[in-house]
Amino acid sequence: MPYVHIKITKEETTSEQKAALIEGVTSLLEKILNKNRATTFVIIDEVKMDNWGIAGKQVPVYRNQE
Amino acid sequence: MPYVHIKITKEETTSEQKAALIEGVTSLLEKILNKNRATTFVIIDEVKMDNWGIAGKQVPVYRNQE
Amino acid sequence: MPYVHIKITKEETTSEQKAALIEGVTSLLEKILNKNRATTFVIIDEVKMDNWGIAGKQVPVYRNQE
Amino acid sequence: MPYVHIKITKEETTSEQKAALIEGVTSLLEKILNKNRATTFVIIDEVKMDNWGIAGKQVPVYRNQE
Amino acid sequence: MPYVHIKITKEETTSEQKAALIEGVTSLLEKILNKNRATTFVIIDEVKMDNWGIAGKQVPVYRNQE
Amino acid sequence: MPYVHIKITKEETTSEQKAALIEGVTSLLEKILNKNRATTFVIIDEVKMDNWGIAGKQVPVYRNQE
Repeated sequence: MPYVHIKITKEETTSEQKAALIEGVTSLLEKILNKNRATTFVIIDEVKMDNWGIAGKQVPVYRNQE
Repeated sequence: MPYVHIKITKEETTSEQKAALIEGVTSLLEKILNKNRATTFVIIDEVKMDNWGIAGKQVPVYRNQE
Repeated sequence: MPYVHIKITKEETTSEQKAALIEGVTSLLEKILNKNRATTFVIIDEVKMDNWGIAGKQVPVYRNQE
Repeated sequence: MPYVHIKITKEETTSEQKAALIEGVTSLLEKILNKNRATTFVIIDEVKMDNWGIAGKQVPVYRNQE
Repeated sequence: MPYVHIKITKEETTSEQKAALIEGVTSLLEKILNKNRATTFVIIDEVKMDNWGIAGKQVPVYRNQE
Repeated sequence: MPYVHIKITKEETTSEQKAALIEGVTSLLEKILNKNRATTFVIIDEVKMDNWGIAGKQVPVYRNQE
């Protein structure tokens, strides 16, 4: 009964990409750890870029400097 | 000083239901573990159904198949 | 299919108290939001007191000053 | 490579305040624990006041009673 | 720069299985969402079975009844 | 009433360092966002290095390659 929480920056992620991610992670847990698909949760959390910091900067600033 | 985080699918949850949930969980922690109400936090996180997967599928697909 | 995460300080919580908390929270979600018990997760996370801060102090220091 | 998650009530937090918080927390981790800034994540999560409970009450009710 | 948190019950998960899970999830995020591997975090959290509830019961009780 | 969760790798972090981190983060939230210290929580979560992945690798492997 794994619980997986995925945080990504809020960009143009489509519902199809989310579906692929949910299916992929669930299958990985089944394959590697023999976890039951029926009770596997995967939650995707899209975070506004202003609210995500890396290296001490908000993502938009960070990306401009890369 | 417990901290409780509740994730539910984003549907038509009313403010009254949220209030009841907050009160109920706080009282449970007081009754069972003798926790101080004054420093008990309860946070409700409503997750879009496309972002929640169970059994390898997004919730709307999963519910259609049940 | 709610997911509930409860953080408490690591003290002498018994397995029976944990069972009561799990049952109580699951029943609350069923009663208030009509959530399906079968896919309700409740996870209890016991945090060492040195690792929990409130009001800028670690819990043992905080409690001594109350 | 620390990961920091900050939950605050959703009010009028500006992007400048978020930037200051991200920078401040990253610098603290560098100063106190010698953590590498380049792989420090800070995520700010703004929670609707109706979804945040303290002392068994939603924040707007709680604040009115203080 | 995704952040992934995986909660599983604490059983006999080997370091090799953890490595495979970390690699697999990182590759999925790269393939599906084109995320940069260098700033992808995956954290595995092993939860004691007494602390995990499903369907209102602790995992050991739940498994005995299946 | 902010809630802050800090995840770091489990190394030789002392109780004094944890205290400094808790105090520092609480003061930052007070200074930048005018948050009430009395209801600010800071929780430090020390994660075993085998359970933390970055760039698709467990931390010990990652550090050896840097």
